[in-house]
Formats: sequence, structure tokens, C-alpha cells
Amino acid sequence: MFGFLRRPKVRIDIPRLKPRIDTSSYPKVNLAELTPEVLPYLGQVAYVQLAIFEELSDAIGRAPTVAAKQALAPAAGQALDKHERFVAEIRRRVDTPSEIIAPFTPGIDRYRALVKGADWYEQLASVYLTSGILDDFFTLLAAGLPGDIGPRCVAILDAETGRDAIDRILSEAITGDPVLGSRLAMWGRRVVGDTLLVARSAIHLTGNPESDEQRIEPVFTEMIAAHTRRMDRLGLTA
Amino acid sequence: MFGFLRRPKVRIDIPRLKPRIDTSSYPKVNLAELTPEVLPYLGQVAYVQLAIFEELSDAIGRAPTVAAKQALAPAAGQALDKHERFVAEIRRRVDTPSEIIAPFTPGIDRYRALVKGADWYEQLASVYLTSGILDDFFTLLAAGLPGDIGPRCVAILDAETGRDAIDRILSEAITGDPVLGSRLAMWGRRVVGDTLLVARSAIHLTGNPESDEQRIEPVFTEMIAAHTRRMDRLGLTA
Repeated sequence: MFGFLRRPKVRIDIPRLKPRIDTSSYPKVNLAELTPEVLPYLGQVAYVQLAIFEELSDAIGRAPTVAAKQALAPAAGQALDKHERFVAEIRRRVDTPSEIIAPFTPGIDRYRALVKGADWYEQLASVYLTSGILDDFFTLLAAGLPGDIGPRCVAILDAETGRDAIDRILSEAITGDPVLGSRLAMWGRRVVGDTLLVARSAIHLTGNPESDEQRIEPVFTEMIAAHTRRMDRLGLTA
Repeated sequence: MFGFLRRPKVRIDIPRLKPRIDTSSYPKVNLAELTPEVLPYLGQVAYVQLAIFEELSDAIGRAPTVAAKQALAPAAGQALDKHERFVAEIRRRVDTPSEIIAPFTPGIDRYRALVKGADWYEQLASVYLTSGILDDFFTLLAAGLPGDIGPRCVAILDAETGRDAIDRILSEAITGDPVLGSRLAMWGRRVVGDTLLVARSAIHLTGNPESDEQRIEPVFTEMIAAHTRRMDRLGLTA
């Protein structure tokens, strides 16, 4: 868990208009050797995107204003689009995408219930933070896919997320309500553990625990650092 | 309510791969003179599409299988896309689309609660049937919009709905369960009244009740006939 010590101490973050997944800072050690087969990878990442879509849709349904509904709509649309593009990749290989996806639904549904949150703000914080971690994770994992499917998956994940709107809604609410800010900071620390467990469950272990851990540890450390940066951006203390 | 008597008695329905809104059979008398101003029209139709998206998203969340979730996803995506395209039309005219939409949310939210249905199948039947009626209605109403905005709105409404998947799910379930079929037939007859009330509320009456009714009556008669055809397609007796 001390992988961050190996990173350069000075980092200049240039603000970007449309923040994307930033994996350029990830350590050279990657998860490539721990990537599962193509179909389980696609089934899992497809269902994760559907879960993100469902949470965002649910948040749209519960949004207090039309303006909030509208702000969240593009993020829901983008997650749905990613889901459909992953399903299309599955369909290029087999006729029944749902059979490839089905094994992953109970675990991810359980996870969703754990990180759903007690109200609309916790739900938004959760979907913002957890989808960030999971997009990063599946982007890293894609490096180990054979042929051109890896880059294609990265391109799908790297497309616009629409989640800057969630950032704006949360940052504004947190600025105006310090009690909410401290509650969401706690919640943001709470969801990361469950999310990393989902990530771990997607990894294909080689059977050599020592070398597996050597690969996983620096990547997870960097995933936690990226999570901390997302917390910072919302104005939350990680 | 006897407008159908004026239609030719023999009609050959050619099956279409992707059923779209079919307004070619609508009477020549149209709603053009009863069309509201551009912004109220756009605000209302934008929120109707958002409501369709929210109902479909909710149905995806409640779907019993991944296959059903996936089958419904394109319909949700299409409704969201239509919502966003209408919002873009509003934004070409004013900076705050949510203020244009807001006046219509209480009425449509109340309507949604009325036609939501008691379970997943009633919800699906409702969204299939009511979105069909409302798409037809707003397509007809668009004829009275000034300039090129009318055809642009028709093009948005006439895009792929993705709702043939709902048709398939319902038809299959109804074929396998006559009790469900008779329950949904009753439900399908039930939702049409509330939907026509929403349509009526969107009409800009001229203040001459007699001529207003002369315009509305044949159009509503044909909208009911189109609803009956959608019921037939599902295997339901209207």
C-alpha cells in the first residue's frame, strides 16, 4: 500500500474541460497477466455499465428538480451507450450476450445494494466515485486482452462519461452544507472497500499469491490515489 | 366519436420490420390551429420523453432477467435521446430549458402515478401503449408549429423508438398466460382515458368550443383507433 512513494513528488495537474479517465499516472506494472478471458471480461464490464446506468436512472427519478434530472440525463445515456457497445462486442462472439452476463449479476447486484446510500446525495456520490474506480480498473485490465479487443474496450470506457454534471451538483451542495460534506466524506471512504472487492473478484489469479499480490498492490494503490483525487475534486476529505 | 366511419373500409396493413408512428391514416382535419406556442410545446414534449425514459429505466431496474434488461435498454436510450434533442431545441431559444419544462412536471408526474400499473407487466403495457398515443399526438400537434421547427419535431418523434422489444416481451407473456392477457387488456383500456386527458391539456383551445370540438374529435377518434391496433398487436382485446 505504499506504491505512492514511488511516484514523483511534484505533479502539475492541468485542468481539463472534460475530465476523462486519467491512467497516464498508473505504474508501469499492470494487470495484463491477471486479465480474465475475453468473454468473462466483456460480460462483467457490460453489466457494470448497466448497473451504473440503472443507478443514474434511479437518481434521475428521485431528483428534486427538472434541472437536476436534465443534468444527470447525459451521464445515464453515456453509461447505457457503453453497456450497449460492450454487448455488441459480446454479440460478435456469441449469440446470447445475456448468458455471458448472467454469472456476474448476483455479485454486482449485491454490491449495488451495499453502496446505494441512504439518500439522493449519497447515491450520487456513490455512483460518481465507484464508477470512477471501476472505469479505471476495467481500463487497466483491458491491457491484457488479446488482439484488438483491448484497445476497443479502452476506447469504449474512455468515451465521455457525462459525470462532470454529478461533480457540479455535489460540489455545490457540499459547499453550501458542511454537515452534508462531512457525511459524504465518510460515505466516500466507505464505498471504496466494497468497490475494490468487486475489482479483485474480476481478476484472474495465476495461482502464485506472491507474484499476484506484487502485480495487484501497486495498481490498487494508484486506484485509491485516483479515488482520493476524485474526493478532493468534490471538496471531500478522503 | 364516429370519425372511423369516414375511413375506407378495406385497409391492407403491410407488416413493417421496424414499426414507426403511422400517421398516414389520420384524417385531413388536423390539430394545427390548436397547437400551443413553440416553447410550451417543446417543454411539454421534452418532459413526456423524459417521463417515458424514467418509466423504462424503472422497468429495466425491475426486470426479472438480464435478457429483459437488455431488450428494454434501447427503448430507454431512444426516449432519453429524444428528450435531449427537444431540450436542445429549447436551448436554441432560451438559456434555461428547465424553466420551460417545469410548469408541465406536476401534471405529467400525477399522470405517471395514475398509469404506472401494479406490476412489471402493467408498467410495460402502460409505457408501450401510452407512449404510442403521446408520440402520435405530439406528431399531429407539431403540424401547427411555425417555420421549420414543426418538421424538426416530427423527425425527432419519428426516430426509432426501440419499443418493438416491449411488444415482444408482452406478446410472449400474454400468449403463455391468458389470465395475464385479460388483466392487461383491462389495464390497456384503463390507461387510454388518462392519456387523452394529458393530450387535451396540451391543446391550445381557440375559445370557440364548437369548432374546437370539431377539430379535436376526429383526431382523438383516430388516436383511439391507433391505440386499438397497438392492443391488437399485443394480443389484447381493446
